[in-house]
Amino acid sequence: MPATTPHQTLLDQLGWRYATKKFDPARKIPSDLWATLEKAAVLAPSSYGYEPWRFVVVTTPALREKLKPAAYNQAQVTDASHLIVFCRRESITPEDTEALLARTAKARGVSVESLSAFRGVLSGFVTGGKPPGGEWTVYTARQTYIALGFFLSAAAALGIDACPMEGFDPIQFDEILGLKGSGYLSTVMATAGYRAADDKYATHLKVRRSLEDVIVRR
Amino acid sequence: MPATTPHQTLLDQLGWRYATKKFDPARKIPSDLWATLEKAAVLAPSSYGYEPWRFVVVTTPALREKLKPAAYNQAQVTDASHLIVFCRRESITPEDTEALLARTAKARGVSVESLSAFRGVLSGFVTGGKPPGGEWTVYTARQTYIALGFFLSAAAALGIDACPMEGFDPIQFDEILGLKGSGYLSTVMATAGYRAADDKYATHLKVRRSLEDVIVRR
Repeated sequence: MPATTPHQTLLDQLGWRYATKKFDPARKIPSDLWATLEKAAVLAPSSYGYEPWRFVVVTTPALREKLKPAAYNQAQVTDASHLIVFCRRESITPEDTEALLARTAKARGVSVESLSAFRGVLSGFVTGGKPPGGEWTVYTARQTYIALGFFLSAAAALGIDACPMEGFDPIQFDEILGLKGSGYLSTVMATAGYRAADDKYATHLKVRRSLEDVIVRR
Repeated sequence: MPATTPHQTLLDQLGWRYATKKFDPARKIPSDLWATLEKAAVLAPSSYGYEPWRFVVVTTPALREKLKPAAYNQAQVTDASHLIVFCRRESITPEDTEALLARTAKARGVSVESLSAFRGVLSGFVTGGKPPGGEWTVYTARQTYIALGFFLSAAAALGIDACPMEGFDPIQFDEILGLKGSGYLSTVMATAGYRAADDKYATHLKVRRSLEDVIVRR
């Protein structure tokens, strides 16, 4: 197929991205581009639409310096233009269900009362035993990774470098970011910006298992 | 900004997608488009590059019929053009580390022996206590949701409808798909194809928490 098809554009974007190890500390993401990335993450889908997450965008340099030692002193924490911590909801509460019903009613221009079938489904899910994964915090963490995937895909589509990062102490992060008691827990983060000219990882061929190894057909 | 910017295109695509409830059973995804979706999922990043997953693409109608009752008889299971089950690795083994080192060496054109520093990091991670999430199967499930996010984003970019689905019995799925003993566990699935003309969910306004509610700035 020609290099200009949507197929090829998409694969070029995803092939271009890599876990950026060294950012150019002098280059900042323009605010309109960053705003688009935030919107893309917010548009990520979640089970039943609970959106059991919060995204903490950290731009204050002093705070980034404080986070760094809690993240094995990885340079991206302070050098990247932006840092976003994807936090999962500790559990799904009856209030979460009410909020979901309220925003669904609002978007559809109907009354909350008219959504009784949906209420029944949600209530059954919340009270009916274990969610996928077995525990609420496992379940909400999984959802949060969908948002991470949307964020990273969107960054690639816009030509912004990013690095997903799990290597940090979530308890220290919660403390530094003032999340204690908020009902949200630091789960995974991404740094974003522009690769440094001398990031040697930028020129490495992408390492992936073969399609035949990953995909099974039935 | 004008409607033709990459920003707006991206947000239009993500705004266009929705969890498709009713697929047109007569419309199949062209094979070149489906191949692109598979490649996009394979390009998803994962912690350390372990790719602790397998994707089972189910197109055999009889098998889809068998899966349906194990998924609360949801119509998408049989009506969608394609069904893909994202399976997580049960655990990360020393063999997984060797395979990761081997494919890294191959991609970089170096010897496995030259990657001793990387080997040390991986070995420390695998033997050094608990991964993020506390258990291997929790950790690998999280990774698998990144791939789901990439798949759904890619589908939106290509104008293919999809529906992420967690509502199924993973034990029955493992059995029906012949995954028992494979080292992989059914975790989450997506159906993909084209929305039916009368799927009423297609015209609903998207329900999302506001940006101000989801994003916290520090």
